[in-house]
Amino acid sequence: MDKPTPVAGNGLLDRRAFLRDGAALAAAMTGYALAHPASAAPLAEPPWSRTTGAISPAYEKASRFEERVARTLSNPGGEPRTSHARTPHHLLNGTFTPNGLHFTINHSGTPDIDPEQHRLVIHGLVRRPLSFTLDALGRYPLVSRMTFVECGGNSAPLFSPQPIQATAQALHGLVSCAEWTGVMLSTLLEEAGVDPKAKWLVAEGADSLALSRSVPLSKAMDDAMIALYQNGERLMPGNGYPIRLLLPGWEGNMNVKFLRRLKLVEQPAMSYYEARTYSQILPDGKAYRFYFLQEVKSFITHPSLGLRMKGPGFYEISGIAYSGNGRIAKVMVSADGGRSWAQAALQTPVLPKAFTRFRVPWRWDGGPAVLQSRAWDEAGYAQPTRAAFVAARGETPAPFPVTAFANQHFNAVTSWAVDAKGEVSHVYA
Amino acid sequence: MDKPTPVAGNGLLDRRAFLRDGAALAAAMTGYALAHPASAAPLAEPPWSRTTGAISPAYEKASRFEERVARTLSNPGGEPRTSHARTPHHLLNGTFTPNGLHFTINHSGTPDIDPEQHRLVIHGLVRRPLSFTLDALGRYPLVSRMTFVECGGNSAPLFSPQPIQATAQALHGLVSCAEWTGVMLSTLLEEAGVDPKAKWLVAEGADSLALSRSVPLSKAMDDAMIALYQNGERLMPGNGYPIRLLLPGWEGNMNVKFLRRLKLVEQPAMSYYEARTYSQILPDGKAYRFYFLQEVKSFITHPSLGLRMKGPGFYEISGIAYSGNGRIAKVMVSADGGRSWAQAALQTPVLPKAFTRFRVPWRWDGGPAVLQSRAWDEAGYAQPTRAAFVAARGETPAPFPVTAFANQHFNAVTSWAVDAKGEVSHVYA
Repeated sequence: MDKPTPVAGNGLLDRRAFLRDGAALAAAMTGYALAHPASAAPLAEPPWSRTTGAISPAYEKASRFEERVARTLSNPGGEPRTSHARTPHHLLNGTFTPNGLHFTINHSGTPDIDPEQHRLVIHGLVRRPLSFTLDALGRYPLVSRMTFVECGGNSAPLFSPQPIQATAQALHGLVSCAEWTGVMLSTLLEEAGVDPKAKWLVAEGADSLALSRSVPLSKAMDDAMIALYQNGERLMPGNGYPIRLLLPGWEGNMNVKFLRRLKLVEQPAMSYYEARTYSQILPDGKAYRFYFLQEVKSFITHPSLGLRMKGPGFYEISGIAYSGNGRIAKVMVSADGGRSWAQAALQTPVLPKAFTRFRVPWRWDGGPAVLQSRAWDEAGYAQPTRAAFVAARGETPAPFPVTAFANQHFNAVTSWAVDAKGEVSHVYA
Repeated sequence: MDKPTPVAGNGLLDRRAFLRDGAALAAAMTGYALAHPASAAPLAEPPWSRTTGAISPAYEKASRFEERVARTLSNPGGEPRTSHARTPHHLLNGTFTPNGLHFTINHSGTPDIDPEQHRLVIHGLVRRPLSFTLDALGRYPLVSRMTFVECGGNSAPLFSPQPIQATAQALHGLVSCAEWTGVMLSTLLEEAGVDPKAKWLVAEGADSLALSRSVPLSKAMDDAMIALYQNGERLMPGNGYPIRLLLPGWEGNMNVKFLRRLKLVEQPAMSYYEARTYSQILPDGKAYRFYFLQEVKSFITHPSLGLRMKGPGFYEISGIAYSGNGRIAKVMVSADGGRSWAQAALQTPVLPKAFTRFRVPWRWDGGPAVLQSRAWDEAGYAQPTRAAFVAARGETPAPFPVTAFANQHFNAVTSWAVDAKGEVSHVYA
């Protein structure tokens, strides 16, 4: 081949241009034209090359030039209501979220927990009620796994009848992905001895709200983890330090933070958050009683609103796909609003219930374009179009930024329109 | 089975106790005895459950109770010499290193680089010398990969004739692992057009030292990356912000930070760091001219010096293994100083040239024990015993903490002795 082959409308190129196959690649590469010819004159000596640099700190922080790479806060003054901190997906790359930028939602602030004094108790319908120190939990067999956590209310702005002009951070910033290390909950439950009558457990946090959610025992015995470490270090305070429940692929609020009690019971407790806030509302006014799974979803992060494009030419379209059902099987990308599609390259390893970065090469001709991504998971589920999704689930004039009462579990396609000036806007297409 | 089966001396248990197989597991689990019976009295209400918590920050930081989880600094006053910042492996878990705790070595401090002004130039024996802005580099096809970076001088304290009493951080803290995202160097070289006479390239940084190293063209065209992101966000300042060369599996110093120039040449430049500091010294006083590969290695992080054991009973032995040759194939663990060995469980996914966490269940009887780990890689190389290694490479009365002039590329077995009080010391066994 001479150059990457167009495989779909409006300049989408073959993802296999990414595969490294020697001579063919070399030819393909000549088409980028992103660099400038280097002049014969030597590079100017910048000021930072003329003086000794800064002292290494004990805990390294990002460059001062990256201050905008931060979470946006819905409640920066700490008023007595819920606080959201959203991940800046449009400014990140790769497959997971650094700890400082992992999203958090806290309903009564972040408690300042002394790990030496904190206990986890398993009680209720068990043979032997048990109490665990953090030190004891760290001595059990540990496992590590990458998994995303997503708020059931993530992407709720897309329920709005009109597309809200906001970044991927504002629209989709309530999902993040990390490597979590901890004890399988099944290990602890089997040590406590579960009464056959127990079908649920009620997980309760040590925050002042004592946030609690009911979890089916089947999930607890499957892949639930008592997480102790986040991306190698102890959990961040806002993510549940020193202990959180991790339910891979299930809505964020159930992954109870500051975990303090697990009570085995016969019936769900119908606690505040499961009976009210995280219910999905249907067009007829009824609601799903429980809807735990975060279904297959994807969105494009590059290009996206807030990242202005600098003239026609080569760009990489990339974004994030994930599914609470398991691995991502396929992501298709369109540059013409869904009329034609190209298959994206998936960054390996593709892990279950974790972020998968997808990438497609694109030659933008400078004309209007509408960028979309659509993901499929290994269980066979496809991300719905927005039109099909709202036909089933309705639209909601969501308050924005979303603070409460929005509808839940939006997982349909997001569309970004690019105009001739390179400005990106949010559209429904 | 009733309980995890002993598979080697001094209490090492079968790693398959970690595999989840229903009834057998349930039986196995009853042996941990790490929890306390929970009393009928309700849990006391701690102070943090009684008041609203803290406000979420834009960039989350670790809990104040984790302040000791920090890098140790060899030059905290910023004197005009090399600065080492070492990763606290004994306080971390999982398979990679958070950005704040990734090791750094800087020979003239950390430059404060304005990314808008920074350029990367490829010149020398190329058809078209090219100059890249950071923005242009971000438009190329990107790839993400987990890989460790290790200083050639990591573990140099173990060249000492007497075992130095220091933590895994002090002994082995000059290796870390991250997910790096960037452009394959081959993509850029093929765009520049490499002259067939070129066999090496000289990579130069924008630090005031203009640190430079020569890299064989074959490595540059294989898996070398121009890294732009570290664990999802832009590179940390001490790790080369805004651009570093990444040579997976090769000694850290060659992964040139603050990368500014790549010059294609016929012969290595014999620059300061390749001609002097990072040469391996042999017992006869001669030195290897070049020794780029970081060979297969492992060390136990839990238990290890500085982590006191609290009485007999169940513990998990775990640590890190990695190889510049590719994937880890196997890790064996001994609790009796190498007389008998048990195979460790490897945390999946096992990725090439990346940290692999290994784990073995252990029932400590309260008597003396000597813990060792030994790794094999998929290329068939085995980590040497210390005795075999120093027989070939010699011992060196290394200054400690190591500041310079130590011997290089130590990859032999580390031994931790546990005494009856649960104190851990560093021994040669």
